[in-house]
Amino acid sequence: MAFLDAKYLLDSKTAEKIYKAVESLPIIDPHNHCDVKALSEDLNFTDIWDAEAATDHYVWECFRKCGVPEEYLTGKKSNHDKWIAIAAQFPKLAGNPTYEWIHLDLKRRLGIDANISAATAEAIWKESKKLLAKKSFSQQNLIKQMNVETMCSTDDPVDTLEYHKALAGGKLDGVVRPTFRPDKAMNIMKPDFADYIAKLGARWDVKIRTTKDLLKVLRQAHKFFAEMGARASDHGVNIPWGYQVKESDANDVFKKALARKPLTLAEFKTYHSWFLNEVAELDAEDGFVFQLHIGAVRDVRTSLYTKLGADVGGDIGDHETSYVEPLLPLLNRFDGRLKTVLYNMNPVHNATLAQLTRAFGGTVNLGLAWWLNDSYNGMERQLNYSSSVDVMSAFAGMVSDSRKILSYGSRFEVFRRTLAHVLGGMVDRGQVPLDVAIERAVDLSYNRPKTFFGF
Amino acid sequence: MAFLDAKYLLDSKTAEKIYKAVESLPIIDPHNHCDVKALSEDLNFTDIWDAEAATDHYVWECFRKCGVPEEYLTGKKSNHDKWIAIAAQFPKLAGNPTYEWIHLDLKRRLGIDANISAATAEAIWKESKKLLAKKSFSQQNLIKQMNVETMCSTDDPVDTLEYHKALAGGKLDGVVRPTFRPDKAMNIMKPDFADYIAKLGARWDVKIRTTKDLLKVLRQAHKFFAEMGARASDHGVNIPWGYQVKESDANDVFKKALARKPLTLAEFKTYHSWFLNEVAELDAEDGFVFQLHIGAVRDVRTSLYTKLGADVGGDIGDHETSYVEPLLPLLNRFDGRLKTVLYNMNPVHNATLAQLTRAFGGTVNLGLAWWLNDSYNGMERQLNYSSSVDVMSAFAGMVSDSRKILSYGSRFEVFRRTLAHVLGGMVDRGQVPLDVAIERAVDLSYNRPKTFFGF
Amino acid sequence: MAFLDAKYLLDSKTAEKIYKAVESLPIIDPHNHCDVKALSEDLNFTDIWDAEAATDHYVWECFRKCGVPEEYLTGKKSNHDKWIAIAAQFPKLAGNPTYEWIHLDLKRRLGIDANISAATAEAIWKESKKLLAKKSFSQQNLIKQMNVETMCSTDDPVDTLEYHKALAGGKLDGVVRPTFRPDKAMNIMKPDFADYIAKLGARWDVKIRTTKDLLKVLRQAHKFFAEMGARASDHGVNIPWGYQVKESDANDVFKKALARKPLTLAEFKTYHSWFLNEVAELDAEDGFVFQLHIGAVRDVRTSLYTKLGADVGGDIGDHETSYVEPLLPLLNRFDGRLKTVLYNMNPVHNATLAQLTRAFGGTVNLGLAWWLNDSYNGMERQLNYSSSVDVMSAFAGMVSDSRKILSYGSRFEVFRRTLAHVLGGMVDRGQVPLDVAIERAVDLSYNRPKTFFGF
Repeated sequence: MAFLDAKYLLDSKTAEKIYKAVESLPIIDPHNHCDVKALSEDLNFTDIWDAEAATDHYVWECFRKCGVPEEYLTGKKSNHDKWIAIAAQFPKLAGNPTYEWIHLDLKRRLGIDANISAATAEAIWKESKKLLAKKSFSQQNLIKQMNVETMCSTDDPVDTLEYHKALAGGKLDGVVRPTFRPDKAMNIMKPDFADYIAKLGARWDVKIRTTKDLLKVLRQAHKFFAEMGARASDHGVNIPWGYQVKESDANDVFKKALARKPLTLAEFKTYHSWFLNEVAELDAEDGFVFQLHIGAVRDVRTSLYTKLGADVGGDIGDHETSYVEPLLPLLNRFDGRLKTVLYNMNPVHNATLAQLTRAFGGTVNLGLAWWLNDSYNGMERQLNYSSSVDVMSAFAGMVSDSRKILSYGSRFEVFRRTLAHVLGGMVDRGQVPLDVAIERAVDLSYNRPKTFFGF
Repeated sequence: MAFLDAKYLLDSKTAEKIYKAVESLPIIDPHNHCDVKALSEDLNFTDIWDAEAATDHYVWECFRKCGVPEEYLTGKKSNHDKWIAIAAQFPKLAGNPTYEWIHLDLKRRLGIDANISAATAEAIWKESKKLLAKKSFSQQNLIKQMNVETMCSTDDPVDTLEYHKALAGGKLDGVVRPTFRPDKAMNIMKPDFADYIAKLGARWDVKIRTTKDLLKVLRQAHKFFAEMGARASDHGVNIPWGYQVKESDANDVFKKALARKPLTLAEFKTYHSWFLNEVAELDAEDGFVFQLHIGAVRDVRTSLYTKLGADVGGDIGDHETSYVEPLLPLLNRFDGRLKTVLYNMNPVHNATLAQLTRAFGGTVNLGLAWWLNDSYNGMERQLNYSSSVDVMSAFAGMVSDSRKILSYGSRFEVFRRTLAHVLGGMVDRGQVPLDVAIERAVDLSYNRPKTFFGF
Repeated sequence: MAFLDAKYLLDSKTAEKIYKAVESLPIIDPHNHCDVKALSEDLNFTDIWDAEAATDHYVWECFRKCGVPEEYLTGKKSNHDKWIAIAAQFPKLAGNPTYEWIHLDLKRRLGIDANISAATAEAIWKESKKLLAKKSFSQQNLIKQMNVETMCSTDDPVDTLEYHKALAGGKLDGVVRPTFRPDKAMNIMKPDFADYIAKLGARWDVKIRTTKDLLKVLRQAHKFFAEMGARASDHGVNIPWGYQVKESDANDVFKKALARKPLTLAEFKTYHSWFLNEVAELDAEDGFVFQLHIGAVRDVRTSLYTKLGADVGGDIGDHETSYVEPLLPLLNRFDGRLKTVLYNMNPVHNATLAQLTRAFGGTVNLGLAWWLNDSYNGMERQLNYSSSVDVMSAFAGMVSDSRKILSYGSRFEVFRRTLAHVLGGMVDRGQVPLDVAIERAVDLSYNRPKTFFGF
């Protein structure tokens, strides 16, 4: 087998057969970090750095590890020099999915077959620059090329969704849906919380003074998102506090925060719990899927955060915290009436979350391998384990979670090949008949996310 | 390879050779949930639902996940309609051991080769109904057919073991042994604890007022179980509290509980610790194996528990709790003089428990993959890891833990094939000579449990 | 494939090719427990027990598990009788790395091809006794035979390193370097702490009364170690407390300990945190690598500890404790200026530590699979997972951690074969081109440890 050839990740004839059945299915991507403004303008990427690395802290982190200085990652060096600097280190990334994703993007999207290294860096720069300038590589055309049927961006309730509107009637009509992500209204400990709440009120012409006001605005925004095609909310939580608390207690904390007084951790838990439950209630009303991204501990590396701020690297998965105890009250309150997906960052929690979702019936689903688990290794482990404990067909399907349009196709390719490998293994071990395996592969690659999210 | 054929789970000639050596060995099953009354009556199962699903909440949970309504699982629909309902969902279970077990039961026990689906449901119903009505498929004949040499049921100290007695002299003479499982006398927080203690006292003609009285009764029951062939006790614990406490403190808690006063968690720990240590002492006296099933958090899904009670699903494995700290005092107290088996529900604890059992010499054994780990995936992971950290030959062997007689053979088949696969891998990687691998397979499939439990 | 033959652990032509590229590279072993005195005397081992088991509690623990009585392990039986006793149990160790290591030592070092068992025990004893007596099997000649370029012993700051000096100019000139391991000065809760501090002061002609005195002595010792070729410190910690504390608080605790007053856990944390930070500061000054061996909970089996003391078995990996929270302050303080390696005993922490090291750039490295993870199984799991989350090339390389000279070659062979297998898998799955995989294998086997440690 050669690098990323047709048999990539497919270790048997059976896996090849299964992959054939899903290879060309349209992409359904219920969660990503698409820049909808840029997409609506249908611009081209200026160069390979712009397309692959300019917005992706996952990439920066890998090359920091290889010793590339910050000025070549987040600093002022030219895109050209940055690309040359990381290309020279590329062979050190063997085994990391970034190595495969970017090579896949080059091969599958741009038709560039060179392996990235110091020797090939300059030629790849030039060749890709030429290609990326073509109209056929505009952002919208890339989405079409990758056969994306549905993709969901991640949006704040203050967002007017004007760029989503701008897409209507165009090439991507009906393709891009917003997702309701009110993290800023949940993160009450953040220093700019009161400012954010003022901004949110201004967006919806309400002076927000109480949790009742807040809820009114959130409901308004939620309905608006629903009209604009949203089918899900999304929440980034370290610990999924979803205790049942009194609104009056949450309101006390909220007013304290608006008065810019410091809060205790207990107060944070109270407000956080109230908030998650209320958004879940809105989701249940509107038939949305309630997505929790659990366990990212942000910005543990102080030097990065101080210099560059958030979303630049330095994030890790939590290990020690129980997710069961804080989440159970919410799961029980909404049992049977809220479609839920739980994504998990540290694989040490995979087993517990698989067992937990197993216990709560068809509405509560495990999300596919997230963030640092989003690799052949991470997905294979999760698919094998979770299908043995829970029911594989109750996964909600793959999401790209990507910040890079060029990369969607590659991520779904890796997923579908891994899925074909996992199911192929089951068939070849005599655990599952081939036709059933193919049915599962098609279902998980297309039908299941489509029907579960209601696209 | 075809579904469940002769090479099922055997991925090499070596694995096939190893399996050949263990395939026909008699079954030793030191732990299951056999209904001894039903077995003693030697009745036939009325139909495939009765045989496969009527008593098995593991099955219900899988189909709940697939969206089968409760009335078709635990509700009032007819056995026929229930079977048709789950059969239609069967292909969604690919990868889950339930998919393999039930198919194996059909193929190996009943000779029905169809793959279960909506299309085949009715035919399988009819065919299996006919077969299950034959005398050769009576419960006792099934046990004989599966070549079960020894099996241990799970019994309360109040049990008169009359059905065990009834089996003496019959087809299963000497096959079915009881196990001493005094959970109800340990679970002092349960609302019916005082009632249970009264019942236990009545069974043994003792008015139980103190821990001393309780212990007297337990010892009496233990001796009786020993006479009736028991060789083990068994305990279902969430956290294995085995601290060394004063009997007077435990007695204070006990008397409070008998007076139906509410207890604190600390009081529960005290009583629980005292209780486990005392039963361990009885086991040490009588040469019993002390089995702990650790880490099941029961009934986390309130809606199920409220409607259907316990043992219907909604149980998960604990993640966060340390098992080492509470268990060490007991392990150290009985070091070298108590045969112990530790079973574990959440695989996140596999490594710690393997390292812990490694530290305590030949009397402390890791139990084979339990409950949600009881699958090809779970057993392979545990066998590979634990043999690399501890000594594989110090496992106490497979147990079915099954509530379904029809299923014993299938579960042991999956275990023996997985074991052959694991050992075959070692041989094919050049880590172990073939003759040594075969010796290990035979040992773990038969000799080891037989000698460790003393059957 | 036959047991331990040329294809051992190499499951494909690709893996074989990769292994060929690293098979003969010199050994760099940055961490072991070599007895430098014995090595400097260049004595021969008296027999196979002396060479393989006399100093290795890992071996004792395995055979305890098989039921070998203590007198044949740590007791007074003759070496001959001890060897015969364990040899009879050898086949029970299938799957445990000890089984492979000792067989490898026999085959590769001594040319003895027999599989160890009761039947072969006596013949192996005689044959190996004859061979081990030859001059070519003296300790120094063994090191030469195994092509060890650099190896680092583990030494206390009181050590005069006289045996390291004695090696200068001989066959092993420049090969054996000391490592600065001041655990005894850190473990302030130990009953002999004050005595140790007195001894440490005496060694360096300082009356140590305060942390300032202590630090002065440690700095002196550190410089001396640096002159003697040391390039690293090493620290065995259960929980890696590295909080930022005031020296005056640490000094209060230190003086209390010198006065032999009992300390609280909080006081231990304070002193421990201060100590680790100060040694890290010394390492940063001298360009040393700061090695943390994390998570060994020592001596959990009381009966062993009482009878035999420490380092005889009964050690397990910690599970529940967070390593992130206590370690973050130190990692952040030294961010970018301290070469760090984190070794981990319980694989449940693998994911968290891989994610943590990923976040801290090129200076913070994950150590390769340690202690109970040091096996094909443990290394494969870690290499696959960590390369998918972090960057494999940022591992600091293999260490033997061995107490047995005869075993170094075997341990590095297992590592290199496992590495070839892991990289071969990536190539065969089409994830990495072959030339890149070979480059990684060579790097991780030789270049990376050499440059990272600065040998």
